[in-house]
Amino acid sequence: MIKVGVVGGTGYTGVELLRLLSRHPQVELVAITSRGEAGMAVSDMFPSLRGRVGLKFVTPQDAALDKCDAVFFATPNGIAMQQAAGLVAAGVRVIDLAADFRISDIAEWEKWYGMTHAAPDLVAEAVYGLPETSREQIRTARVLANPGCYPTSVQLGFLPLVEAGVVDLAHLIADAKSGVSGAGRKAEVPTLFSESADSFKAYGVSGHRHLPEIRQGLTRFAGQPVGLTFVPHLTPMIRGIHATLYARLTKDVDLQALYEQRFAGEPFVDVMPQGSHPETRSVRASNMCRIAVHRPQGGDTVVVLSVIDNLVKGAAGQAVQNLNIMFGIEESTALDIVPVSP
Amino acid sequence: MIKVGVVGGTGYTGVELLRLLSRHPQVELVAITSRGEAGMAVSDMFPSLRGRVGLKFVTPQDAALDKCDAVFFATPNGIAMQQAAGLVAAGVRVIDLAADFRISDIAEWEKWYGMTHAAPDLVAEAVYGLPETSREQIRTARVLANPGCYPTSVQLGFLPLVEAGVVDLAHLIADAKSGVSGAGRKAEVPTLFSESADSFKAYGVSGHRHLPEIRQGLTRFAGQPVGLTFVPHLTPMIRGIHATLYARLTKDVDLQALYEQRFAGEPFVDVMPQGSHPETRSVRASNMCRIAVHRPQGGDTVVVLSVIDNLVKGAAGQAVQNLNIMFGIEESTALDIVPVSP
Amino acid sequence: MIKVGVVGGTGYTGVELLRLLSRHPQVELVAITSRGEAGMAVSDMFPSLRGRVGLKFVTPQDAALDKCDAVFFATPNGIAMQQAAGLVAAGVRVIDLAADFRISDIAEWEKWYGMTHAAPDLVAEAVYGLPETSREQIRTARVLANPGCYPTSVQLGFLPLVEAGVVDLAHLIADAKSGVSGAGRKAEVPTLFSESADSFKAYGVSGHRHLPEIRQGLTRFAGQPVGLTFVPHLTPMIRGIHATLYARLTKDVDLQALYEQRFAGEPFVDVMPQGSHPETRSVRASNMCRIAVHRPQGGDTVVVLSVIDNLVKGAAGQAVQNLNIMFGIEESTALDIVPVSP
Amino acid sequence: MIKVGVVGGTGYTGVELLRLLSRHPQVELVAITSRGEAGMAVSDMFPSLRGRVGLKFVTPQDAALDKCDAVFFATPNGIAMQQAAGLVAAGVRVIDLAADFRISDIAEWEKWYGMTHAAPDLVAEAVYGLPETSREQIRTARVLANPGCYPTSVQLGFLPLVEAGVVDLAHLIADAKSGVSGAGRKAEVPTLFSESADSFKAYGVSGHRHLPEIRQGLTRFAGQPVGLTFVPHLTPMIRGIHATLYARLTKDVDLQALYEQRFAGEPFVDVMPQGSHPETRSVRASNMCRIAVHRPQGGDTVVVLSVIDNLVKGAAGQAVQNLNIMFGIEESTALDIVPVSP
Repeated sequence: MIKVGVVGGTGYTGVELLRLLSRHPQVELVAITSRGEAGMAVSDMFPSLRGRVGLKFVTPQDAALDKCDAVFFATPNGIAMQQAAGLVAAGVRVIDLAADFRISDIAEWEKWYGMTHAAPDLVAEAVYGLPETSREQIRTARVLANPGCYPTSVQLGFLPLVEAGVVDLAHLIADAKSGVSGAGRKAEVPTLFSESADSFKAYGVSGHRHLPEIRQGLTRFAGQPVGLTFVPHLTPMIRGIHATLYARLTKDVDLQALYEQRFAGEPFVDVMPQGSHPETRSVRASNMCRIAVHRPQGGDTVVVLSVIDNLVKGAAGQAVQNLNIMFGIEESTALDIVPVSP
Repeated sequence: MIKVGVVGGTGYTGVELLRLLSRHPQVELVAITSRGEAGMAVSDMFPSLRGRVGLKFVTPQDAALDKCDAVFFATPNGIAMQQAAGLVAAGVRVIDLAADFRISDIAEWEKWYGMTHAAPDLVAEAVYGLPETSREQIRTARVLANPGCYPTSVQLGFLPLVEAGVVDLAHLIADAKSGVSGAGRKAEVPTLFSESADSFKAYGVSGHRHLPEIRQGLTRFAGQPVGLTFVPHLTPMIRGIHATLYARLTKDVDLQALYEQRFAGEPFVDVMPQGSHPETRSVRASNMCRIAVHRPQGGDTVVVLSVIDNLVKGAAGQAVQNLNIMFGIEESTALDIVPVSP
Repeated sequence: MIKVGVVGGTGYTGVELLRLLSRHPQVELVAITSRGEAGMAVSDMFPSLRGRVGLKFVTPQDAALDKCDAVFFATPNGIAMQQAAGLVAAGVRVIDLAADFRISDIAEWEKWYGMTHAAPDLVAEAVYGLPETSREQIRTARVLANPGCYPTSVQLGFLPLVEAGVVDLAHLIADAKSGVSGAGRKAEVPTLFSESADSFKAYGVSGHRHLPEIRQGLTRFAGQPVGLTFVPHLTPMIRGIHATLYARLTKDVDLQALYEQRFAGEPFVDVMPQGSHPETRSVRASNMCRIAVHRPQGGDTVVVLSVIDNLVKGAAGQAVQNLNIMFGIEESTALDIVPVSP
Repeated sequence: MIKVGVVGGTGYTGVELLRLLSRHPQVELVAITSRGEAGMAVSDMFPSLRGRVGLKFVTPQDAALDKCDAVFFATPNGIAMQQAAGLVAAGVRVIDLAADFRISDIAEWEKWYGMTHAAPDLVAEAVYGLPETSREQIRTARVLANPGCYPTSVQLGFLPLVEAGVVDLAHLIADAKSGVSGAGRKAEVPTLFSESADSFKAYGVSGHRHLPEIRQGLTRFAGQPVGLTFVPHLTPMIRGIHATLYARLTKDVDLQALYEQRFAGEPFVDVMPQGSHPETRSVRASNMCRIAVHRPQGGDTVVVLSVIDNLVKGAAGQAVQNLNIMFGIEESTALDIVPVSP
């Protein structure tokens, strides 16, 4: 059994991790921390976990995290970078669901996140945990940077086009729509039901923290700098991201074959038949990413539709997938969830 | 392996059955029928099942249902009663998710369902499949009448009070609220998104088909006739039923203890701590029923809150629970689902 | 022109007041106060008011409210009671949308609201502003207590039965369902979209602040004490209250006629035809209350369905209706809104 | 008073027309037709209109439409083209909310709509009713083609850029998101609540009927052919369209000034301040279009955000605006609606 700790178990990525880990046959949950809720039974805060998770929240000090085999950080940005070094030194493998280790360029990270980075050396060794591109490095990672939700959907959607070098890399467009849970479980007015239900809006058009993360990934795939316009939107649903991607074709290519070949054998990427329109509910509560590729009117603009559940493949599920890879377990363990639809 | 057929796999109870059965380690799905969609891959209609269910819909004639060990009817009312006798004669055990075998009084059934019953003799032997009250009879049932969604939530909620005889049985009130999936996957104007979102209404106040089913159950629990006012409502959510039950106490009793004792050991009924308000999302996609019991201001009115997922404990999940009981399998097989929340 | 000030314009009742008052031909909006947002244009906070409301928020001190003819308090509980006496002394008529003047029994108010009341003498003279029962007193009110949202829907629904004395007054039941805007525009976790969408729950079963307000009203109608069980629920929609009311008939009576006669001539109460099920969307954004009365299976339980828009007839609309009555204006001025449906 | 008839009053554009026209001080509603519902009171089908619209549905034959001054067609495509000639001959001015007269190129229309056009000559004289570009022609129109919902939001959003010739016209992208009411009030499975709530999808990526309409408009603005990729999406809300538009800048220009100048004086287009993100709810139930223009990171990609209520500015409201222009009435008559938010 892998002894696992979860730091920051009171947000949506935290409770989603617990949903998945509580059914993981090779994981023993040993501690879930929360400064604010220490002493409270986890299932009192999340009744969906009644009978599934018997632990109480403990303070980080009481958690004995250094006795764990792996620790997940489901915390706000800036926490994992404070604690990771100590854990790594104790032989604990760290999986950060926040952004602390995602951006290699420290200056760029500090610009977007407005903090001084506490562990630049760990950033240098951290592995960006997108299994479809980095499975080998993930196996041995001591610090794993779990990708963001938008970046997962956008990078997987663009991956075949950018790797193959068949599109204008200077003018990629990602128009992405997220369910409200992507904003987290913080008490804030804009994500109140009465503010975000029955309405739709863009946000962060002038700049969103996931822009540099996506750009970094696409640049790696391309082996050269890319230009990206990224417009996130808030849509009145709880879970799900739908990324609609636009690129200008520079070479004629069988797009359907390109996508099917690139993702052949991937357990969590489903290239749908030509002409498909994946719905976010088709992946709800599951770790799947479904992708369809279109070329409207046979023109030179390619349109890619990529959907994930932001809390699963976009966060907790991908983190468990990474845990499985890191510990040499069958990759889909505890992730064999049939999407919940309707 | 239990060979299983599903008749009528294109509705919500059908696709939910497939979600559950596709992960059942002791079930082999051998046929899913649909007159209208024969020849179509099941996963083309329900992309959430891509990679999970490889079958195509077949016509009932091509399904060789008499070679199955068990056949589920996820059909409109009036279909199972036509086909059950032949299957039973062939040694197939029948689980009907519709209403054909739920009401013992044939005349009452015909009044509410507006049809002549085709198999009154099977009604006589059919077992009403509420495991919490009839587990023993279920084991040997040849024809199992799977309870309706409202009846499941209301009967479980009232059960301890009515069995114990501590309330005025002549004036029970069930104010029940259902998500829209309870109305099925039929193309009808009132359940369009634009008709039922962001609005709330009662319906069927003068009489709803689940009234006689609930009254029959409560009468059995009480051993005497009961009077029930049942008001169903449509609430703008996909899944879930919240039943709010009112009864007049006629004896002083420790309500919390009464409920906890009655449901001790039940795998799918969770009596919540005193003062709780269960949310429907706390059981979403799972087979759980969560119940809380209140006595406001210490008066003589008891208020019971009972929530289920109408498609799981209110339909497909309870049907699988019944299958497990009927075939001597561990009762929660394939039902070990952690509720999806948020 | 009536000079009007609004204290506390940043919540939902505040913005709804502005929506209505901005189209009122006899009202001049002179000041909208907000301590926290002073200096900000109202339409920067509420873009729906762009081009409609040109004012900026001002501090209460800068508002010169004592120069107004009428001042609305759209504030949290406990504010109006601090400021009303000064305004009344200056000849300003006060309309409080919060609860400060709703409960005549000061001790009862202090128990439920957890504060010491600052102006018990004004409570004594305040008029409870339900036009359908108190139109005459409203005309001359100096301090008007605008009813709560649940209390409006429940009192109007029970009014004919209780006035006529045809039901068991000791055991009234109000099962009420509210849209999430009823909880206000406060940053709190339980009313986040991801917490309250696609789910349904009861709350406050052991006691809710609207219980004493409703009980006081019903007691006045009856001329004797009443017993009431009140269970509020949260339903995933923005606006609307649906109250489902249950009472035991003690006299045989033509319920439809009783309701039609009681509300004949009322501009904002619509008694629907026998057998109707009013939907909350049928009153969305309007000041209407629609009511239907049922007697299921001809038994002795009467079921009343009463729907309002909680922000209009349940708050700002009723406040404008009261303003119109107080200033001798045609009662429906600025309230001639056709409900928005779908 | 202008005598007005409405053909096809049972869909969403029909009931929305009635909401608006019932408050129009210079309109007398004389007939609302419906083949299927003739004899039924309009307010029995739409309780929101109780007390507002006293008419019953009549058959087209009984409607005496040729005695009207204006007739609106709120019908499926292909109806108005059958009846318009007769009405025009009788001196009636026709406003078609469907697509029959929107596309000048008959062959193109027939290709996309799959019908032979019954009145090509009327197409030739019909005026495309986008007031912001064609106010003068609208004044004298005998047949007015009311624009589609997507086309209104996309054309208004692109208009200043395309007219000014400052973008690459060959590669415009419109990523548009619509509420479900855009699909109409037809009983169909994909727009059931349980199918479209809490999910998001693209549709019609290979080709949507609004593509040729938008392309025709943009071509007119540009004075030369344009290339457009148009991807519509379904978002789980009732009303609203959010168009996110992308274009490559070919000249440096003050975008904010360009937009403000182009729409100066327009009563129903609101250019928001720099950096804004208009929400669809900020125009809910109103005839406003709100637009914001962005240039992310100062690059050469311009992003325009354009929101409307699809049933108002995208259908019935624009039709009333056109009626007002055609009959020389103040353009915003009956359209002075403050958006309903929250």
